[in-house]
Amino acid sequence: MTLTFEDFQPGHFGTFGPRHVTREEIIAFAAEYDPQPMHLDEEAAKRSMLQGLAASGWHLCSIMMRMLYDGFLHRAASMGGPGMDELNWVAPLRPGDDITLDITVLEARASKNRPQLGIVTFRAKILNASGQVLLDAKWPAMFQRRDALPKT
Amino acid sequence: MTLTFEDFQPGHFGTFGPRHVTREEIIAFAAEYDPQPMHLDEEAAKRSMLQGLAASGWHLCSIMMRMLYDGFLHRAASMGGPGMDELNWVAPLRPGDDITLDITVLEARASKNRPQLGIVTFRAKILNASGQVLLDAKWPAMFQRRDALPKT
Repeated sequence: MTLTFEDFQPGHFGTFGPRHVTREEIIAFAAEYDPQPMHLDEEAAKRSMLQGLAASGWHLCSIMMRMLYDGFLHRAASMGGPGMDELNWVAPLRPGDDITLDITVLEARASKNRPQLGIVTFRAKILNASGQVLLDAKWPAMFQRRDALPKT
Repeated sequence: MTLTFEDFQPGHFGTFGPRHVTREEIIAFAAEYDPQPMHLDEEAAKRSMLQGLAASGWHLCSIMMRMLYDGFLHRAASMGGPGMDELNWVAPLRPGDDITLDITVLEARASKNRPQLGIVTFRAKILNASGQVLLDAKWPAMFQRRDALPKT
């Protein structure tokens, strides 16, 4: 059953994961996209403001995207989104962390210009196994309305 | 010469790149972090709102991070940043695009709580070779002040 705009009602939507994050993937992402020493090298990281090896914030965002996809976007009539309203890296993602993604729908409204679409505003929090918030974000996303789905 | 807070004055800071983005890297990133059909498969992408294969927005952010690093962060006394104030995906990043990163300093101010730090607010735009804006973002970043650098 494809998720459409009508399936996103204000309130808690779901909790996804946990996902285990390894040292190897933190270093692999950093080597390609964010080779600052605190994301690559344990000794340098200890001397940094992160006080130990931690993932790039963009790695955490990318992992969030994959958790959104695996959690529900893979079966949703998603039409993408224009950007992020809020994006906060609250605490470091550490090697070995098991993280969960908690999704709340803040608002769901019909598109004024495109009657086949609705706009859903999400709040996401990523937490580690201790319940510490690592990332807090808010963004609008577009979904097809059920009436606009191709008939199968 | 290490760049410190004092080196970031309001105004245009620099233009970095161009960086060539291949179909292979768009698909590799999508396969790992954002396997929505419009980022993976040309035929599915043609039927999507992107009207052809395009990179994940998170891939574009990750490439921006690498361009920031290669452009100037690798030689800056960077102390990271808490998140993004604005992040807008304006137009799709396509296979074969050559992109440039344009950086402006909007504001530079001393930290109230930490006299060894200053906070620089950046505006970034990523443009393709036609001058079309693909990404527009704004964020605060912390840098050490020159007086706080370790004496070498």
